[in-house]
Amino acid sequence: MSDPLPDLIEEVISHSELNDTGIGVSEIIAQADEDEMALLLESLPIEERLSLWQTIPDHKKLDVLIEMRGDAREVLISATEATKWDKLFVDIDAENLLELADSLPEALVDRAYSAMDRIQRKYFTDANQYPEDQVGHWITHDILVLPHNARVRDGIRLIRREMPRHTDTIFLINRSGHFSEAVPIAKLYALAEHIPLVDIALEDFTVINAIDEGQIAAKEVLFSNYGALPVVDENRKLIGRIDVTTASELNQEYYERQLMASAGMDENEDLFAPVRKSAKGRAIWLGINLLTAFLASAFISMFEATLQQVVALAVLMPVVASMGGIAGSQTLTLIIRGLALKQVTPANMRILLAKEVKVGGLNGVIWAIVIGIVAFAWFSDPLLGVVIAIAIFLNIVAAAIAGVFIPIILDKLKIDPALSGSVILTTVTDVVGFVAFLGLGTLLLV
Amino acid sequence: MSDPLPDLIEEVISHSELNDTGIGVSEIIAQADEDEMALLLESLPIEERLSLWQTIPDHKKLDVLIEMRGDAREVLISATEATKWDKLFVDIDAENLLELADSLPEALVDRAYSAMDRIQRKYFTDANQYPEDQVGHWITHDILVLPHNARVRDGIRLIRREMPRHTDTIFLINRSGHFSEAVPIAKLYALAEHIPLVDIALEDFTVINAIDEGQIAAKEVLFSNYGALPVVDENRKLIGRIDVTTASELNQEYYERQLMASAGMDENEDLFAPVRKSAKGRAIWLGINLLTAFLASAFISMFEATLQQVVALAVLMPVVASMGGIAGSQTLTLIIRGLALKQVTPANMRILLAKEVKVGGLNGVIWAIVIGIVAFAWFSDPLLGVVIAIAIFLNIVAAAIAGVFIPIILDKLKIDPALSGSVILTTVTDVVGFVAFLGLGTLLLV
Repeated sequence: MSDPLPDLIEEVISHSELNDTGIGVSEIIAQADEDEMALLLESLPIEERLSLWQTIPDHKKLDVLIEMRGDAREVLISATEATKWDKLFVDIDAENLLELADSLPEALVDRAYSAMDRIQRKYFTDANQYPEDQVGHWITHDILVLPHNARVRDGIRLIRREMPRHTDTIFLINRSGHFSEAVPIAKLYALAEHIPLVDIALEDFTVINAIDEGQIAAKEVLFSNYGALPVVDENRKLIGRIDVTTASELNQEYYERQLMASAGMDENEDLFAPVRKSAKGRAIWLGINLLTAFLASAFISMFEATLQQVVALAVLMPVVASMGGIAGSQTLTLIIRGLALKQVTPANMRILLAKEVKVGGLNGVIWAIVIGIVAFAWFSDPLLGVVIAIAIFLNIVAAAIAGVFIPIILDKLKIDPALSGSVILTTVTDVVGFVAFLGLGTLLLV
Repeated sequence: MSDPLPDLIEEVISHSELNDTGIGVSEIIAQADEDEMALLLESLPIEERLSLWQTIPDHKKLDVLIEMRGDAREVLISATEATKWDKLFVDIDAENLLELADSLPEALVDRAYSAMDRIQRKYFTDANQYPEDQVGHWITHDILVLPHNARVRDGIRLIRREMPRHTDTIFLINRSGHFSEAVPIAKLYALAEHIPLVDIALEDFTVINAIDEGQIAAKEVLFSNYGALPVVDENRKLIGRIDVTTASELNQEYYERQLMASAGMDENEDLFAPVRKSAKGRAIWLGINLLTAFLASAFISMFEATLQQVVALAVLMPVVASMGGIAGSQTLTLIIRGLALKQVTPANMRILLAKEVKVGGLNGVIWAIVIGIVAFAWFSDPLLGVVIAIAIFLNIVAAAIAGVFIPIILDKLKIDPALSGSVILTTVTDVVGFVAFLGLGTLLLV
């Protein structure tokens, strides 16, 4: 298949009066699956999004909502009449409600909860015992389970009855409900019916703990070459599984969060959020950055007299700040990825710091010389060249040190380094850069 | 499982003399699978990495190399004696070689090619007809295939013989080898043996084209709820499949590339690259940024006389530049994600631009007022407040416009917007910010 989404967007926007049921649009609705529909709705400006939403049959609406990102979803939720919800909640289960809960008003969560049966309610309550960053919050319950002493014939009977997606193993449990072994389904057919399943169980099958970090557990599943891995609670009791679809969703969300965090947004940000809402969300980030910019200005203002006498310093200030910022962000990004992959630890941190400082030192020397010569040539002042060269060197080395320490410290404090790392780093490189440059300028040039 | 990697790193580094075979280390090697081993090797400084590499049994080495990122892998490849390779290549297949080819010297690629049988050589040659960004390059050939007229009994016979990972469907082909249908394996057991497989074939089963973009195809697979999807060539001939493991690797690589590109690095960057290599890789990015910084300086230098008279302008310059840069990077990031998800298209671009300009306008007004008042209070100069307020407003609006257009234009030119978007954006916001601020300053304050 070649990608149909751009065509769909084109189609809907050009027929923006959806009530006249242009042929293309009604076809889209009939054919698209929930994922495509969700992406399409997110891609539409609010008005078109709401029109299209009205034309989606009620029995599909819940599944589409579940696939959408938070902010775009909330637009549709608040546009849905109160009377409709009972119809939408008719088939809701615990996993769906857990996915939606953050976007639903509390009253609607209660209503959905009441619509579920006893088992789903229990699943919902159990999952909520784990916070959203733990994998226990996201488990599914469609597992094939047999007692530890079951035989091949029991296995075959079980898989004839049902076969959930991504199921390639049957989980065996002991009498206390503890997970004991996993049996590969593919082997069942080649064997005699009376053989005990434990005889063909897998060795070294990975088990996920419900309290494990979601993204780490997701990686385990995706690495495992199995369709799903079992999840156990603190007592080793089997409580569900994470399959590759859930795992890749968790992984994808993790990376989207990182990407968006680098600009102070979250992964739920809506492409077509209402202007006021969007402006408000971003204003906070601009405000935080403004404080750090004013801090830099405060340091610059200490050297007002110098700037007045040597205006070339003012001209070259952005060069010093920019080189430090860029060098620092390279180290920062490398460390953030290393932390995400659990590759950066106290054990290798010192050696990593030494290496980054050496890289910074080498690049510092090279660019100090280049920039020093350019500044000298530009302003015909050899001392100015010396001043900017030293400042560049110091700032690039400081950037390397800050680039290693800032994300590691933030990570320890449980603050997402992808979100606040770059602001703090820029503050450091701005202050170090301006103070070194203007300070040396005051000493040598005035 | 709780994450063992940090402990492993600790263990290996504290026993850095690996030849004395500290108990912990030899246990690690015996128990870890290829993925863990690959991550562990990447997490080690070069010296420890090479020591540990020596202790890995030869029959495991190739699998470990395949799981590693490019740069860290190359360190090990170049440290492996020439005589060893025949042993390592003994079981190599086309997929392995495709994965490694970029890191291997050409002579070794040839040697590995010679070590493979005729079929694997053909797979290798066929895959290389597709560039690395197309999914045809990454297909696997472990498919279950039957002719279009096969019956349930044929299906059962086939899956008794073999069952590759993530296999939940059998693919049916017609006499020309064209893909025709997919049959869910789970259904086979409940049915009589003589029933034709086409009777239980899936409707609307997604087929991937070999020329599709890798990350788009990966999303299709991960969305599909199936373990794998068939891949066809230009003539609709079935040539292989993409399973969820390959798909999640492609997806993960895509996001890692985006993350690293934002700092001018690639996803192969080694945590412990040799200093000189690392410095060289990053120097290019610093150089490009230096050019844009000098460009900003050149614009500032047009206003030297003004700066000399009103030194407050020099003090406040970073505030104007910073606010534009941050506001622009928010829009840029949102658009880059939208492009990655194929949600931003010519059809909705205009409405998106209008929305971003409105968001920028609103935030521009708010922060113009705030910063104007602070500047006025700080320097007791109402006109300075007016000057910076106007400059901030203009720069934030310009940043919004640039944030929409730059990534869309780069994407059209097939340049990764995650890599060069932020440099170009910063150049725009620096130049607009400085010219507006210092230009207005010249008009109103001198």
